[in-house]
Amino acid sequence: MKTLIQNWKSKLHEIIYEADTPAGKLFDVLLLITIVSSILLVTLESVPSINYKHERFFDISEWIITILFTFEYLLRIISIKKPINYIFSYYGIIDFLSTIPKYLSLIFGGAHVLIILRSLRLLRVFRILKITRYIGESDKLMSALKASRVKIIVFVFAVVILCLILGTVMYIVEAGASSGFISIPRSVYWTIVTMTTVGYGDIAPVTTLGQFIASIVMILGYGIIAVPTGIVTSEYTSQYKIKQTNTRSCENCGTEKHIDNSRFCHNCGDKF
Amino acid sequence: MKTLIQNWKSKLHEIIYEADTPAGKLFDVLLLITIVSSILLVTLESVPSINYKHERFFDISEWIITILFTFEYLLRIISIKKPINYIFSYYGIIDFLSTIPKYLSLIFGGAHVLIILRSLRLLRVFRILKITRYIGESDKLMSALKASRVKIIVFVFAVVILCLILGTVMYIVEAGASSGFISIPRSVYWTIVTMTTVGYGDIAPVTTLGQFIASIVMILGYGIIAVPTGIVTSEYTSQYKIKQTNTRSCENCGTEKHIDNSRFCHNCGDKF
Amino acid sequence: MKTLIQNWKSKLHEIIYEADTPAGKLFDVLLLITIVSSILLVTLESVPSINYKHERFFDISEWIITILFTFEYLLRIISIKKPINYIFSYYGIIDFLSTIPKYLSLIFGGAHVLIILRSLRLLRVFRILKITRYIGESDKLMSALKASRVKIIVFVFAVVILCLILGTVMYIVEAGASSGFISIPRSVYWTIVTMTTVGYGDIAPVTTLGQFIASIVMILGYGIIAVPTGIVTSEYTSQYKIKQTNTRSCENCGTEKHIDNSRFCHNCGDKF
Amino acid sequence: MKTLIQNWKSKLHEIIYEADTPAGKLFDVLLLITIVSSILLVTLESVPSINYKHERFFDISEWIITILFTFEYLLRIISIKKPINYIFSYYGIIDFLSTIPKYLSLIFGGAHVLIILRSLRLLRVFRILKITRYIGESDKLMSALKASRVKIIVFVFAVVILCLILGTVMYIVEAGASSGFISIPRSVYWTIVTMTTVGYGDIAPVTTLGQFIASIVMILGYGIIAVPTGIVTSEYTSQYKIKQTNTRSCENCGTEKHIDNSRFCHNCGDKF
Repeated sequence: MKTLIQNWKSKLHEIIYEADTPAGKLFDVLLLITIVSSILLVTLESVPSINYKHERFFDISEWIITILFTFEYLLRIISIKKPINYIFSYYGIIDFLSTIPKYLSLIFGGAHVLIILRSLRLLRVFRILKITRYIGESDKLMSALKASRVKIIVFVFAVVILCLILGTVMYIVEAGASSGFISIPRSVYWTIVTMTTVGYGDIAPVTTLGQFIASIVMILGYGIIAVPTGIVTSEYTSQYKIKQTNTRSCENCGTEKHIDNSRFCHNCGDKF
Repeated sequence: MKTLIQNWKSKLHEIIYEADTPAGKLFDVLLLITIVSSILLVTLESVPSINYKHERFFDISEWIITILFTFEYLLRIISIKKPINYIFSYYGIIDFLSTIPKYLSLIFGGAHVLIILRSLRLLRVFRILKITRYIGESDKLMSALKASRVKIIVFVFAVVILCLILGTVMYIVEAGASSGFISIPRSVYWTIVTMTTVGYGDIAPVTTLGQFIASIVMILGYGIIAVPTGIVTSEYTSQYKIKQTNTRSCENCGTEKHIDNSRFCHNCGDKF
Repeated sequence: MKTLIQNWKSKLHEIIYEADTPAGKLFDVLLLITIVSSILLVTLESVPSINYKHERFFDISEWIITILFTFEYLLRIISIKKPINYIFSYYGIIDFLSTIPKYLSLIFGGAHVLIILRSLRLLRVFRILKITRYIGESDKLMSALKASRVKIIVFVFAVVILCLILGTVMYIVEAGASSGFISIPRSVYWTIVTMTTVGYGDIAPVTTLGQFIASIVMILGYGIIAVPTGIVTSEYTSQYKIKQTNTRSCENCGTEKHIDNSRFCHNCGDKF
Repeated sequence: MKTLIQNWKSKLHEIIYEADTPAGKLFDVLLLITIVSSILLVTLESVPSINYKHERFFDISEWIITILFTFEYLLRIISIKKPINYIFSYYGIIDFLSTIPKYLSLIFGGAHVLIILRSLRLLRVFRILKITRYIGESDKLMSALKASRVKIIVFVFAVVILCLILGTVMYIVEAGASSGFISIPRSVYWTIVTMTTVGYGDIAPVTTLGQFIASIVMILGYGIIAVPTGIVTSEYTSQYKIKQTNTRSCENCGTEKHIDNSRFCHNCGDKF
């Protein structure tokens, strides 16, 4: 009996966690369709004109999707050896959060807690994160981003400091010109909008000096975009090279990452 | 007799499909002029003030161009050995679609099917694709883009997911601020406008928290542009290297990666 | 007695200038909190609605922060061997400027010198520069930027010349179209806004020729962003390579460019 | 007598064309000041409020600058051996065009030819090109741009084709939505504004389908910026490497550009 359950569980595990068998592939495709449908429903529901017409349809669809996700969540828990590991893993939490919103809306039901219902609706959009399971991680890209993490944080920090100072300067310069620079936070917001070359135009300098400083901010923003690009490209290229020269491992000590054309292991001195 | 036609066909093939002979060059230049004229006419015809004045001129010009393209299309079919291959090739389809709109307008004529006439006009713009025949394909660039295709799709996918989540957050935050975030699709549209640093300004956050999140979206968009750039640059550089140092290995010592046009091995001095 | 003071001074120096001891770390954390609080206060004070309500709170907070910075400044002077070096160093000047605004407001007090008080407020934002002490300098990035400095200046100069000429052309073309191109400086401002892809939309061409030239400016701006990016990436990559493979040459065979931490020469197998 | 003039001419040549002697440096500095002053005057003259007040000042200043440039032009002609080479060189034409506007304004004087006077004013801005003499040409950058010229033209061409097709699609989609897509040229203009991430906001889609296509245009524009960046970076890096490995020339045949660590010339096989 125990072996039967064991077999059944391992079969289930294969279907749910792996994509090699036809049943596994079918499960993945169905799950993908459910996720995408769910996101589409949440999105369309937020459009007032559509929601007004099809309110009942959205309610029923949401229940169907919630039940499907509930099944998926339970199946994942019972088919894995250590459920606790799954429950507190990244995907475990995402799966749980994707399931509960509709149940919570029963508890906090009633039109008087609109703000909570809104947040629950928000919560549902995070279901898109379930899809990351199928994207697969781009190893090289990830390790390049990880390697350049510190530098990018330093860069972002430098940009923020620059925006703070230049925003304050603009606040002084455009004061009293009724051009929207009414406070430092707003001026800093404008500086970020300008330096990142977004440029809404809701706030724009009108004084000559303001426009001169704005020009400097723009050229600065236009130029320093080269910095993160340079960092990521360099790291990515170097990750690329590590891969390229990484084919041979030393038979003696097992070290990898030898320079091309090496005739001796750089770790143990063994002749290749 | 048969040989005569054969000769005539091969002569025609040379003129139409190759650009080495004077006749072939002349054909190409005439075709290019016709294509560019056609595009200019379609474009100008869409300007109400111009179309109003010269309606007759546009009609006649379109007939002339259509007849020229019809001739070209027929000549291409009869001068090739396997017409079926050409007809269903990329350029065969483009050539066919470039020719038919005016004929179709005879069938679907009458002012009551304006939407179809509009689409036919649209169809004519695709004639510009006939011009790609003359651009020539940038081998290295193409293979670099092909090599980085999967990574770029993953990147675009990640950007879309990010935009969906951040758009929903903005929808919640700016709700009731009458700043244009009236539905999730609209908020996601705003997030894409902002993250790609386009920044129209037709929708812009007005609440403090909204502007704070917007700032994060901008800096994020400003920073992650580095990712596709890094990918393409890396792949392109690696394509570049493969081309620049040839793959010939020295027969004497086996060293590889010689500079193009080397006449002696740079390691052992052996003559190639 | 003298030794006691000496000991006490070296102890103080350790706390203030180094971050290795628990006391030193505590000092750094407290200083960071003070700086960030100070910036937040300056920023919030500039928001009219907030300043109106909490004027007294801002005044008292500013005094507390000023006194803390005064203590820090004095401690830095007495704990260092050559105070004169510190006072006229980059951080010495920043620390001094961070301390004096409130004292100066006593001297220049009174509502009739609003412009001076405004500038003092501005001065206080530069306190953020105190934080650069903790960022740490990204060696490679800095040397890459230094190496590409001249080229970037030439690039910026070329962009400015291009903007000047194109701005003047737009001024001629859009003259009398009441689209905002009322003077050359304004047209040049527009050209910078467009070429850096910021695009406010406060000034936008309305004539057909104007929009055609604008399109060229945009595509130009879109393309030449590649130039600073190429420069910085190249320099950064070259800095990267210099760091990654060390300059140690093998004592036996003289081969250079070994991977870091190599213990044997990859060419002759000699032990380092 | 003849030798005296010869000496005097060579002395003059040294001052005007070279910057090594103190007199040469002084000449360069004075010329630079004159150019910058001239540009500033042209720019300020275009501001209606400034021009109104100081009309007389601008007239006199322009005469002084014109006379200075006339002297410079004449001196350059008489101090060079083959004046004809200079006159029809790039700088010769620039210098000539910088000198004549004021003289031409005497011929075409009178308020009734405003458009010509405007063009003359435009002409004067090109004086900034005189300054390129002092920028110095960045060899590597120039050769990188030259090497990537064809690819960049192909890229720009591809972008224009893409903009033409997508602009037409938007024209069809947004027809009748009164959102500014009134003709194909205007729609193509919008597509260029969007794809280059400028985003004025003077034209913006209002229909759902229009905003969806706009999102695709944006993400496309955001992504393909990577292409020119990749091209320039690659070419620039390769120019960099050619320089880096270019130190040793073969003693036997004089060939340069050997790979590092080469032990034999790759051209003649001579041992180093």
